Amino acid sequence: MAKRIITISREFGSGGRFIGEEVAKKLGIAYYDKNIISQIAEKSGFSPEHIQEIAELSPKKGMFAYALAGRDITGKSVEDMVYEAQRKVILELADKEPCVIIGRNADYILKDRDDVLNIFIHGDMPEKIQHITRLYKVEEQEAVKMMADTDKRRRTNYNFYTEQKWGKASNYTLCLNSSQLGYDRCEAIIIACTK
Amino acid sequence: MAKRIITISREFGSGGRFIGEEVAKKLGIAYYDKNIISQIAEKSGFSPEHIQEIAELSPKKGMFAYALAGRDITGKSVEDMVYEAQRKVILELADKEPCVIIGRNADYILKDRDDVLNIFIHGDMPEKIQHITRLYKVEEQEAVKMMADTDKRRRTNYNFYTEQKWGKASNYTLCLNSSQLGYDRCEAIIIACTK
Repeated sequence: MAKRIITISREFGSGGRFIGEEVAKKLGIAYYDKNIISQIAEKSGFSPEHIQEIAELSPKKGMFAYALAGRDITGKSVEDMVYEAQRKVILELADKEPCVIIGRNADYILKDRDDVLNIFIHGDMPEKIQHITRLYKVEEQEAVKMMADTDKRRRTNYNFYTEQKWGKASNYTLCLNSSQLGYDRCEAIIIACTK
Repeated sequence: MAKRIITISREFGSGGRFIGEEVAKKLGIAYYDKNIISQIAEKSGFSPEHIQEIAELSPKKGMFAYALAGRDITGKSVEDMVYEAQRKVILELADKEPCVIIGRNADYILKDRDDVLNIFIHGDMPEKIQHITRLYKVEEQEAVKMMADTDKRRRTNYNFYTEQKWGKASNYTLCLNSSQLGYDRCEAIIIACTK
């Protein structure tokens, strides 16, 4: 069946966000990335700044931080409450309209729908470093550090909440190496696969 | 640059071999699968039957069997010698002509070339079971067993000889879910990505 919803998981620096935004523009559908933070904030009662820090990324201390997080009387940590709000927002968005959703474990959250195309975008080190140094105006060494840190926190968050492995091919309909294929070709393949 | 060589790794039952064969036909290039066994046999001195059993699959006892395998005076096991012969055959084939190579860790063996398109094809359980029951004329229960056994042995062989993880998206240029995308579309995407 035709795919109304496109989820894009991505390695930091792979251009996945850029590719997703272009795909949404070309298909004329909604694009959700950081712009869903205010909705998660509203649903959870936490501030947008707090959401931005923890909604897609694990605590900096890694997987143990989830286990050791303070929990309320229901056994839920702050991270769990934010995640639950994020999950509800994503389910509602998918019901509401065709869209591209970047990150936030949307592939797993929407796993019971059959109109979702799940994409994972990754890339080669030299191209990812170049992309990050340009985009964030940082030196190469800093780019490598940002990449390792962000991907680790995304992976930890994903593996904790989904019990799947981030970046394992079988979780996604389509995985693309954007360095080898080029952004334009990645966009064309994704669009062709929605039909 | 244009991709002369296409390697296809695949889950058992995903139709990866069939897709690879069709791609080779449509591109008018050579196709290597079981037909390289005689070349590996010739290079290694072992019989084709022996090669068929061990060249792509780990021993049934799993990873430990590699560690515990009997070794000759150079420290090499029979599995290592067959693998080395297979590696040489694959390197020579890639030098000789444009081709599709199925399995046999060809993605890793050819990692130093920049004219290789590495594909991983996987699928959903119901479609894979259907494919296997038809192809091998077995019952569903037997199909599930064959799938689990073969994928485990391919994974173990790959992880042992490549020090990478079989089925991890970042090892491949392109990963495709053939159940969701359909064989025809997988073929079209692969062909488009060679150019």
